[in-house]
Amino acid sequence: MGDLDLMFNPQSIAVIGASRNPKKIGYELVSNILAGGYEGKLYPVNTEGADIMGMKSYTSVTDVPGNVDLAVIAVPAVYVADIMEECGRKGIKTALVISSGFREMGNAALESKLLSIARRHGIRMLGPNIFGLYYSPSRMNATFGLSRVFPGGIAFITQSGALGIAMMGWTNLYRIGVSAVVSMGNKADIEESDMLDYFRDDPNTKAVLMYIEGANDGRRLIDSIRRTATSKPVVALKSGRTEKGASAAASHTGSLAGSDRIYDAAFRQGGALRATDFAQAFDWVKLMTAQPPPPSENCLILTNGGGVGVMTTDACEESGVNVWSLPDDLQSEFKKFMPVFGNFKNPVDLTGQAYEESYYKSVEISLKDPRIGSVIVLYCQTAITDPVSIAKSVIDACEAGHCGKTVVSSFVGGSQCDDAMKKLDEHGIPSYPIPERAVSSLAAYYRWQRFKQRHG
Amino acid sequence: MGDLDLMFNPQSIAVIGASRNPKKIGYELVSNILAGGYEGKLYPVNTEGADIMGMKSYTSVTDVPGNVDLAVIAVPAVYVADIMEECGRKGIKTALVISSGFREMGNAALESKLLSIARRHGIRMLGPNIFGLYYSPSRMNATFGLSRVFPGGIAFITQSGALGIAMMGWTNLYRIGVSAVVSMGNKADIEESDMLDYFRDDPNTKAVLMYIEGANDGRRLIDSIRRTATSKPVVALKSGRTEKGASAAASHTGSLAGSDRIYDAAFRQGGALRATDFAQAFDWVKLMTAQPPPPSENCLILTNGGGVGVMTTDACEESGVNVWSLPDDLQSEFKKFMPVFGNFKNPVDLTGQAYEESYYKSVEISLKDPRIGSVIVLYCQTAITDPVSIAKSVIDACEAGHCGKTVVSSFVGGSQCDDAMKKLDEHGIPSYPIPERAVSSLAAYYRWQRFKQRHG
Repeated sequence: MGDLDLMFNPQSIAVIGASRNPKKIGYELVSNILAGGYEGKLYPVNTEGADIMGMKSYTSVTDVPGNVDLAVIAVPAVYVADIMEECGRKGIKTALVISSGFREMGNAALESKLLSIARRHGIRMLGPNIFGLYYSPSRMNATFGLSRVFPGGIAFITQSGALGIAMMGWTNLYRIGVSAVVSMGNKADIEESDMLDYFRDDPNTKAVLMYIEGANDGRRLIDSIRRTATSKPVVALKSGRTEKGASAAASHTGSLAGSDRIYDAAFRQGGALRATDFAQAFDWVKLMTAQPPPPSENCLILTNGGGVGVMTTDACEESGVNVWSLPDDLQSEFKKFMPVFGNFKNPVDLTGQAYEESYYKSVEISLKDPRIGSVIVLYCQTAITDPVSIAKSVIDACEAGHCGKTVVSSFVGGSQCDDAMKKLDEHGIPSYPIPERAVSSLAAYYRWQRFKQRHG
Repeated sequence: MGDLDLMFNPQSIAVIGASRNPKKIGYELVSNILAGGYEGKLYPVNTEGADIMGMKSYTSVTDVPGNVDLAVIAVPAVYVADIMEECGRKGIKTALVISSGFREMGNAALESKLLSIARRHGIRMLGPNIFGLYYSPSRMNATFGLSRVFPGGIAFITQSGALGIAMMGWTNLYRIGVSAVVSMGNKADIEESDMLDYFRDDPNTKAVLMYIEGANDGRRLIDSIRRTATSKPVVALKSGRTEKGASAAASHTGSLAGSDRIYDAAFRQGGALRATDFAQAFDWVKLMTAQPPPPSENCLILTNGGGVGVMTTDACEESGVNVWSLPDDLQSEFKKFMPVFGNFKNPVDLTGQAYEESYYKSVEISLKDPRIGSVIVLYCQTAITDPVSIAKSVIDACEAGHCGKTVVSSFVGGSQCDDAMKKLDEHGIPSYPIPERAVSSLAAYYRWQRFKQRHG
């Protein structure tokens, strides 16, 4: 880890270009760092030296008393090189360069100059052209994105700034817990591979989600994906799959997107799970940060509705999740408490008359059986049962039967089902509004588990 | 239409098996009919003849004074044939047989007997084994599903009862407007093809969504799909795509699902749009009931973020939506008000600094150009712009430029984006939390439009 640790866990931060004007990025940065609850020292730096949000500010970072672990630079592009020089003199070893106006605007020379200054001083630099860095364990929201982030186990790396900020909003809205948000920007110094290496060893990160449009060094990227993916899931999102998409990406970030097939092969080789859209990517990591990976290939589907059972079976079959044919002994277990017109095969159809007790027992039986690796709990809204208290039973059974299996759920229906799913999510049983999304997440977890077993 | 019109627009309904016990289906039915605001005459019938919810009840339907257009039958299976006989004597011509315990439980003979009685009296029968029928124009909620349904233009036909009730909840939760919900049950008499024929001529229905597990008469189904699909979109959902899924379907409804490939070919031949899951199916019909079909193949993408623009381009390319290369004259129009570092090709990248004015103008320009058939409006949450007021600008521009093009939108981000999308939805501009869902819906509309142009 070395250098990057100072960037993620700084004892002190200087915001250079800090502003009192709420419309400025230099204001947002200070305000978000404060709002996030950062407990280290914070030094605003600006040319005027005026007080900012009640804090004394400095006209130069060299005037700051004591050490500075991280410089957050948000001044116009033309001044950044000089500021970096000052950071070097101050002995700062990590920097976030928020400022834009470099290679992405055609100013490659300015960016090279900046990089050489940083290198000369041994400064690790993220950016330029980023919206910042968020890291929940140090309660550091050094971004001009959202002020509030829901903490959790997902590290999110993004090459697109706009998308990254929007994603922060998305994770809030759907209460998806994040350990880190990293805006990569122009990647003059730090690249995805550095970040992957960091998150591999970061105990606060359980899964990595990476949005990428193009890489500087493909071989290095594959190697670091592989190192990380053997210890935790890496989900990759890459746009520019089609010719027109790639051409749009080129005019966006200047990335030479390269043939998509090469990336696709690289992800597969490195063990990254490629998602088709970001909602799917978040679906996957939501499961991977909440539940252990499935210890066996056999999956059991529990349902109160035949229709959703069939849909789920289709989705499992199409994505390589094994809908295990229930042996007689296990069928007998279910027959003990299920109505005679239920279905004792797999999917196990508890029927529309399945109440809390039925769900509790069937989850209990499924978790107990050592042949089963994963359980999909389905509920279809009925006129006679209460989804919220059925969710409660499922939670109770999971907590009682705690056993290292993967449990996912989908409660199909209206607002009561939505409430039930929030409860399940809160108790670490990932829930999805349609069964296909639960299956897609489980299938991705299986793919990762198989990769790890082959290469781990 | 003939017979079925009495079923959808009855002047009077008898609920046979009406109950005062809130746990009974015969209670739910009466209660939902009242809650739905049905304005015709309602006659509860039960063996005790006790008052029900303040209404006089009758011990036999033959005792009811005046005509009965629709009988809703919810008595134990063994009594249904006799009740049907009484309905015939009363001169009733349409019946919903809610009761279960027929072919789906192995009692095929009982079902045949029931059918022959209905036929003898010229009664059109829906069911048995259904949760009922909802039709918004007559404010008739003759179901034991949810009491509240959001009225609109989607007719929803379902072979799975459990799924149908859950779907009613889903449409409420996402405020998807429904003209009809039809539970098909065992399809002893009325089949999907009858319903398709009805909805083809129903001015209140703009699109049909059909969930099917298997059909009695494939040829007839294709023909009626084709008749309907040449006048309005028909979206089909069929589970049992895989071998295990088909086998689960067989034990669920007793349907011989048949080879999925045959259905797939049949849907294509008939012009039905096959969705892979019900969320997708609802996404599609949401667009189709809100916006006109695209008058030309050229699609324009407007965005404030390069990343989402690239994703959207990929999705368009992969689903057959033509991302039109903007000619110089149109690029010049955009250049007049966009920042120089914007992108004037397609996607048009208005940049993260795009405010209300920018969105208004670019939507205005797009709607005015006769070469453009559809517009995808994207917004990616930023720290400096307000999604709700940007949505307002988009709505204003669409209302001012009303011109028969298809407009869809996706606002990516947190709760403010969610609020913005609710506003867009309310004003008939369908909005989706990820761009890929907007594109999938637009692509389906294009497929239907092409089918109609070939066969209409």
